[in-house]
Amino acid sequence: MPSERSRLSLGLFLLSTGHHIAGWRHPESWAAMPMDLRAYVRVAQQAEAACFDMLFLADNNCVPQTDWPAVRRTTREHILEPIALLSALSMVTERIGLVATGSTTYSEPYHVARGFGTLDHLSGGRAGWNIVTTSNSNEAWNFGRESHPQHADRYRRAAEFVDVAKGLWDSFADDAFLKDKEGGIYFDAAKLQVLEHRGEEFAVRGPLNLSRPPQGYPVLVQAGGSDAGRDLAARQAEVIFSVSQTLEEAQSFYADVKARLVAHGRDAASVKVMPGLFPVVGRTRAEAEDRMAALQRLLHPDVGLSLLSFLTGGFDFSPYDVDGPLPELPDTDVGKARLKVIADLARRENLSIRQLYERIAVSRGHHMVIGSATEVADRMQEWFEGRGADGFNVMPPTFPQGFTDFTTLVVPELQRRGLFRSAYEGTTLREHLGLPRPPRAVRGRTALPE
Amino acid sequence: MPSERSRLSLGLFLLSTGHHIAGWRHPESWAAMPMDLRAYVRVAQQAEAACFDMLFLADNNCVPQTDWPAVRRTTREHILEPIALLSALSMVTERIGLVATGSTTYSEPYHVARGFGTLDHLSGGRAGWNIVTTSNSNEAWNFGRESHPQHADRYRRAAEFVDVAKGLWDSFADDAFLKDKEGGIYFDAAKLQVLEHRGEEFAVRGPLNLSRPPQGYPVLVQAGGSDAGRDLAARQAEVIFSVSQTLEEAQSFYADVKARLVAHGRDAASVKVMPGLFPVVGRTRAEAEDRMAALQRLLHPDVGLSLLSFLTGGFDFSPYDVDGPLPELPDTDVGKARLKVIADLARRENLSIRQLYERIAVSRGHHMVIGSATEVADRMQEWFEGRGADGFNVMPPTFPQGFTDFTTLVVPELQRRGLFRSAYEGTTLREHLGLPRPPRAVRGRTALPE
Repeated sequence: MPSERSRLSLGLFLLSTGHHIAGWRHPESWAAMPMDLRAYVRVAQQAEAACFDMLFLADNNCVPQTDWPAVRRTTREHILEPIALLSALSMVTERIGLVATGSTTYSEPYHVARGFGTLDHLSGGRAGWNIVTTSNSNEAWNFGRESHPQHADRYRRAAEFVDVAKGLWDSFADDAFLKDKEGGIYFDAAKLQVLEHRGEEFAVRGPLNLSRPPQGYPVLVQAGGSDAGRDLAARQAEVIFSVSQTLEEAQSFYADVKARLVAHGRDAASVKVMPGLFPVVGRTRAEAEDRMAALQRLLHPDVGLSLLSFLTGGFDFSPYDVDGPLPELPDTDVGKARLKVIADLARRENLSIRQLYERIAVSRGHHMVIGSATEVADRMQEWFEGRGADGFNVMPPTFPQGFTDFTTLVVPELQRRGLFRSAYEGTTLREHLGLPRPPRAVRGRTALPE
Repeated sequence: MPSERSRLSLGLFLLSTGHHIAGWRHPESWAAMPMDLRAYVRVAQQAEAACFDMLFLADNNCVPQTDWPAVRRTTREHILEPIALLSALSMVTERIGLVATGSTTYSEPYHVARGFGTLDHLSGGRAGWNIVTTSNSNEAWNFGRESHPQHADRYRRAAEFVDVAKGLWDSFADDAFLKDKEGGIYFDAAKLQVLEHRGEEFAVRGPLNLSRPPQGYPVLVQAGGSDAGRDLAARQAEVIFSVSQTLEEAQSFYADVKARLVAHGRDAASVKVMPGLFPVVGRTRAEAEDRMAALQRLLHPDVGLSLLSFLTGGFDFSPYDVDGPLPELPDTDVGKARLKVIADLARRENLSIRQLYERIAVSRGHHMVIGSATEVADRMQEWFEGRGADGFNVMPPTFPQGFTDFTTLVVPELQRRGLFRSAYEGTTLREHLGLPRPPRAVRGRTALPE
């Protein structure tokens, strides 16, 4: 395994038809991608050929926006269930990690532990779980709730949820299954523990009906940038998918979470911080700018304003002049960290509402870089060496072209600089990321003493 | 499509290492199968080569039995999550149907509708959902419940659950997704309906974030043989996985559910009744009997008694002489139909407790046939033509050998008799079974009027 931080980690954030919200309209785009398995297969194999650490799938248990005149112009209301999709993709890939999002607010720990544990088995140790608390009340209404739980309550539940999931994955010891035909003993019951969890939020007896996953636990990914989110990440996460607009923001976030890690008794290297990166790449900067301009021309104002409203917790921009400055935004209970990044961006660059939604519709607050392969690689190197990032979650504007531009132009440049692998060395996602396989913890009671 | 009832339907009930509970100990058995994807791939491809209609996966969200001295001798405490497993298998098969079990008691309709809808998309219209209400209180304890809900309550919830799932699958019209790049309209919002379900058990707003599944709805399978189970089946099911020991029982069940169908205004041909069939096949009857005897020698008494106790709702046999008659069994709230079949079997054949568990440990109450290919095919033909079955859910004693015996010896015999296909004619599970694709029903409100 390479020494710590000699190379950066790369995820491919697979979102619908690409991260530019109007990118599906581009003549080269696969507009059918959200419902077309063949498109996912090709992109997954392309990412694996480029030696990416992992695929990353977002998720919603709802159609997140219901402003139909705008939403009908977008492709994000269609999401194949991510564990099923990644299970299918595990059959046509061999090495790349497979990370899906799973909500701790609208799921049960037993289901989530089984789903991700199964994916880890099917893929031979390539699964990751992006732990989210969900920030959309449309989801509440699909699960019989009148309203979405408060931020603090969601994070308290999430912390206990992850503990329970770990306990369930630890049900059987790694060597519990003897499969002794002669003696007639299939597993050693002394190596099975019954969790018997009784906490504030959950009562889960266990055991999980699954042998311990190949990676011990799937890699735990976390994305919340609020104070509660950072605290959960510092205690539980192994990868943090963060949102930063500038290197300074990224460095500040990076230093903060690494310090929190240490305060929780963990090694600072045991978490990979991976900001989102929206790259628009050309053979020259001019070509990249042309590509971006072509995409921006496809953006309908209804879509831009609707998304801006959504990302600011439902703020109503209709009374304001779209070419005027951003009004003061009230604090919200959802996506706190992202809201701050957006407001700071508008202030810093003195953007009008229109200019802001044109920026946001693209990268949803994530860092955007438009340029040649050299320029994109320079930026990545700067953030990596400046300790703003251990790697990046790459958000191509479109599929397949926006991603092909990255894999054919930027990846070889990163490889030339020794910043990124040219071949996989390990077989599991933990090995790709240089993360240890967690030992099994003793929890609950042993099923049958030796 | 062949005319009604000219051919029988076949499912392969994929359970762990095979349906003989001690079969994993046989030298030819794949003892690692519950955790070995390659074994599932080979069996799935074998079933497809034999033109089976479908694979059928049972499921539990728990380790169903916790009598550890016995359970450690069995292989059924390890179950890969079935939608993930079938999603993986969809990539290495092309035609065979993929049916998984999903509980209406310990799941949410939104999750289940997404999961099975996604599997139907990934597989190009090959998904089926075996609707179960779950009959095991160990499952309750993994979901924060003190006890398992009563039988009647479970079935009331199940009926509403299925209605909600159908409503969610009907969110988008089949032709809602325009993908009109030029006009910038991805879907026609006039062809999207918001369910807004508010019932006794569930409040689910919708819409589902998924286009309508290729089959409209996945094929709906149901297994409960109690009065409430038959009623649910008559209203909702398209395949009934039944349990009958004798042709007379099977005919009685068959006539009853077909009559209930008609009473609910449905065509009697719109449901396929498929009893479980446990076949032990040899080139001669003597060889088949030898195979069965070899398996029975592997059965440990702890396992037999424990399973018998489990299948009779936890009855304690320890005060009784194992070579004496079956005591009177009290009525239970779980698996009512199966309990009756077991008690009737013991009475009819005057079995001791030991003889009963030796029979039950094998087929769990399902019909067993031990013989040459001709004899097995005769029995199947008799049940099919005698209107005790429209097909069978085949429960091989072991994998791979017990299933290979069936595909190489019995399937060709059925094909020679014109009772089973020699090649797939359709591509979806509905087409294999001769079931219509359900039209979309109007439910809820339209998102945006035309």
